[in-house]
Amino acid sequence: MINPFFKNIGPFKVFEILDLLNLDTKQASSDIIINDIKDLSTSNENDITFFHSKKYKSIANNTKALFCITTENLKNELPNSCTPIVVENVLIATSRVTTKFYPNSIDDNFDITAKDIIETNFKDKVKFGKNVLIGNNVTIGSNCLIGHNTIIEQNVLIGDNCFIGSNTIVRNTIIKDNVKILDNCVIGKHGFGFFPSNNGNLRYPHIGIVMIEDHCEIGCGSTIDRGSMSNTVIGKNSYLDNQIHIAHNVKIGENSIIAGQVGIAGSSTLGKNLRVGGQAGISGHLKIGDNVEIAGGSGVIKDIPDNSKVMGYPAKNIREFLKENK
Amino acid sequence: MINPFFKNIGPFKVFEILDLLNLDTKQASSDIIINDIKDLSTSNENDITFFHSKKYKSIANNTKALFCITTENLKNELPNSCTPIVVENVLIATSRVTTKFYPNSIDDNFDITAKDIIETNFKDKVKFGKNVLIGNNVTIGSNCLIGHNTIIEQNVLIGDNCFIGSNTIVRNTIIKDNVKILDNCVIGKHGFGFFPSNNGNLRYPHIGIVMIEDHCEIGCGSTIDRGSMSNTVIGKNSYLDNQIHIAHNVKIGENSIIAGQVGIAGSSTLGKNLRVGGQAGISGHLKIGDNVEIAGGSGVIKDIPDNSKVMGYPAKNIREFLKENK
Amino acid sequence: MINPFFKNIGPFKVFEILDLLNLDTKQASSDIIINDIKDLSTSNENDITFFHSKKYKSIANNTKALFCITTENLKNELPNSCTPIVVENVLIATSRVTTKFYPNSIDDNFDITAKDIIETNFKDKVKFGKNVLIGNNVTIGSNCLIGHNTIIEQNVLIGDNCFIGSNTIVRNTIIKDNVKILDNCVIGKHGFGFFPSNNGNLRYPHIGIVMIEDHCEIGCGSTIDRGSMSNTVIGKNSYLDNQIHIAHNVKIGENSIIAGQVGIAGSSTLGKNLRVGGQAGISGHLKIGDNVEIAGGSGVIKDIPDNSKVMGYPAKNIREFLKENK
Repeated sequence: MINPFFKNIGPFKVFEILDLLNLDTKQASSDIIINDIKDLSTSNENDITFFHSKKYKSIANNTKALFCITTENLKNELPNSCTPIVVENVLIATSRVTTKFYPNSIDDNFDITAKDIIETNFKDKVKFGKNVLIGNNVTIGSNCLIGHNTIIEQNVLIGDNCFIGSNTIVRNTIIKDNVKILDNCVIGKHGFGFFPSNNGNLRYPHIGIVMIEDHCEIGCGSTIDRGSMSNTVIGKNSYLDNQIHIAHNVKIGENSIIAGQVGIAGSSTLGKNLRVGGQAGISGHLKIGDNVEIAGGSGVIKDIPDNSKVMGYPAKNIREFLKENK
Repeated sequence: MINPFFKNIGPFKVFEILDLLNLDTKQASSDIIINDIKDLSTSNENDITFFHSKKYKSIANNTKALFCITTENLKNELPNSCTPIVVENVLIATSRVTTKFYPNSIDDNFDITAKDIIETNFKDKVKFGKNVLIGNNVTIGSNCLIGHNTIIEQNVLIGDNCFIGSNTIVRNTIIKDNVKILDNCVIGKHGFGFFPSNNGNLRYPHIGIVMIEDHCEIGCGSTIDRGSMSNTVIGKNSYLDNQIHIAHNVKIGENSIIAGQVGIAGSSTLGKNLRVGGQAGISGHLKIGDNVEIAGGSGVIKDIPDNSKVMGYPAKNIREFLKENK
Repeated sequence: MINPFFKNIGPFKVFEILDLLNLDTKQASSDIIINDIKDLSTSNENDITFFHSKKYKSIANNTKALFCITTENLKNELPNSCTPIVVENVLIATSRVTTKFYPNSIDDNFDITAKDIIETNFKDKVKFGKNVLIGNNVTIGSNCLIGHNTIIEQNVLIGDNCFIGSNTIVRNTIIKDNVKILDNCVIGKHGFGFFPSNNGNLRYPHIGIVMIEDHCEIGCGSTIDRGSMSNTVIGKNSYLDNQIHIAHNVKIGENSIIAGQVGIAGSSTLGKNLRVGGQAGISGHLKIGDNVEIAGGSGVIKDIPDNSKVMGYPAKNIREFLKENK
């Protein structure tokens, strides 16, 4: 369930895709219908996928997709059942095609559907402050509180016994039960992902959501961006302090404690039972194990195995760091 | 004056306390009345206190409290006048008892008593923007300004000539005269303090307040948490830049200057005339002396004596640091 | 064009200036009219200027200003056409005189002129959310969106096709075309600049603005302060992630990419095509060249030449840093 909210406006015929990419619309039987764009492993027979790096070769060998956006060099790795669509830049082409299927996943324009909660059915069900706005496609469980000036934009599902503070903005997010999100947060905006270009950077789609599991708490002034092709996840009973930034696609395990002003860059996966000290930073695309302790102010730039305690910049074994820095 | 705002809803009889802790309600004369919970040194004869570490032995020897939450190992340090209440985890039991006396100090639910300032008596006294909300138990001096969308929640005392910006939230806070708090701040929420538990972390009470003394300025997007058992204090004429986080129980001396994105962890005490550079971090429970200069980006992990200049992570003498890092 | 917004309420006669500085009002022909205060090089014949450091000697030699605030030691560097006004502290005196000409540049009181957009002519031109406020002297181009609870205070010029998010505050700012400013930002407040004094710090004027050029994006929860005597500039097509702080007078070149929680201190000038990783910090008054890459978490404390890649604290050549920190 990557994507309960963003609407796939397909299917499209393959010639429409080729046309979008400025390719010869006759290079494939152009009337074939494509249902969706997915990654190599989850694609079904009527989907288009993408393949941009040799490290995904073995998955590419077995993809079920009917079409695959790829390069001249990689195209021979695909099975016979999958027609390559050869482009120069796979990620940019993929971004364009994804945007065609999911046009609402690019922009984060304010939610024009939001109306004052007193004009909605939630007014009898939720305890709310002044000037609370609620957009389309919102569900709220029982016994919830929503503070003053808070905006629950489109595509939000809130469980039972949740507390959302004041001046907070939430969109494209699933919040389970017994969650607290404090004041001045922004949850669920698109991530900081785009293809740089001096003629105007090209934003890529963010069709993932933010998932905040049971019993979490998110501190004041924090930002949690939604995922691009997967979800951003805050695991059960994890507590985040104030002014934390969690980038797109990050996954944090359960029972973790993250102190103030920490930043976690895109697509890193963290285990459970973490302890992260204030102002620590974790680079993107890393794997941090379970039961890891990261000292405040550390800068983590490589994977960390389970049960490690690290400190420093770059972060290393804490004993070693402290011995070297007596 | 730790606690001018949180209401003690006691007294309670001792059997009510024992019952709360799932202890044998007959282990003490159960009808005795207990007025309050305080620390070992400030307790009076009809109070209950707590004692969890040998390092407080000499204070425990002299406590005036009638009852003391403690452990089997420590109970013999108490005077005869004080009846031990033996538990496994002193801090968790103390947290439960404190919550019984001060039930409003646990949660930071939005202030349902807040109403539009134009419906209050402040409308003739304060210069205010649109959509300003004021809660119960608020006092505001003369010649104050409060910006648009700002929420002064319950339990706030503002002096004369103060300026509160727009989109700011204040609660459980005393602001003296000539103070400026800029836009998008959150002042006075509970700190990031709780007992971790995989069945749902247990928040402990925060019965302290935030105290902002004369002539201070707090920059945009800053968060200052209130204290747990003492106050968070920003000393006279201290200036904080944007996006700063001050955790619970921190005390900052007068005439200090703290640059953007600095974070100070819980219960650290800082002297006066400090200069703290941007993005510096100070760990919890430290003592930083007077006239200390901390270079931008430094990570302070131990006490710093008066008149020192430090830099680096961990922060050390600035000359030494710069010599080693030429 | 430093200053399209702050109103010069002069001219003043020179005796008014002398009086303000508690100087002998007879030390110069006191009826002479002074139009403006400017720096040594841009002053015209009826302006007053200031000169506080030997390093500006050669510019001082050629100033066209009629009067110059300076010290006993420096006054002989001025041409005969320029009458010295000798003071003990040039910067404090300059601050006072600037404040006299530009009284609105000191404080950032909330904009009392702001009214609901539905009471303005913008209601037919702009697509806007609930509770949007617009102050005096605001211009907005075609095809713009402004989100809920956002406050466009006085002195803002917005181009075409711009998107301003929700809960954002903008003042004293020029925003060109195709710019996005996301939620919860504060753009255009005065910088963190003042003369420390134990009797109450003395704020100096900020008569510069914030200039955000075409195609920029500013992430959620970011703060960009306006300049003091020059402008703060975000160059064309530069993208800033969430929770970034840009201090007064900073200039960032075009096509730059700055990741989350970065802080840039006052008056630093950055080139174009930068890549700055998350949580990096850049000290004040530095010059960072074009095409520079600064790794996440780095602390930059000296100038960096074009085309460099740096990492660490203090930041150094990235290869060297990684070799030393294997």
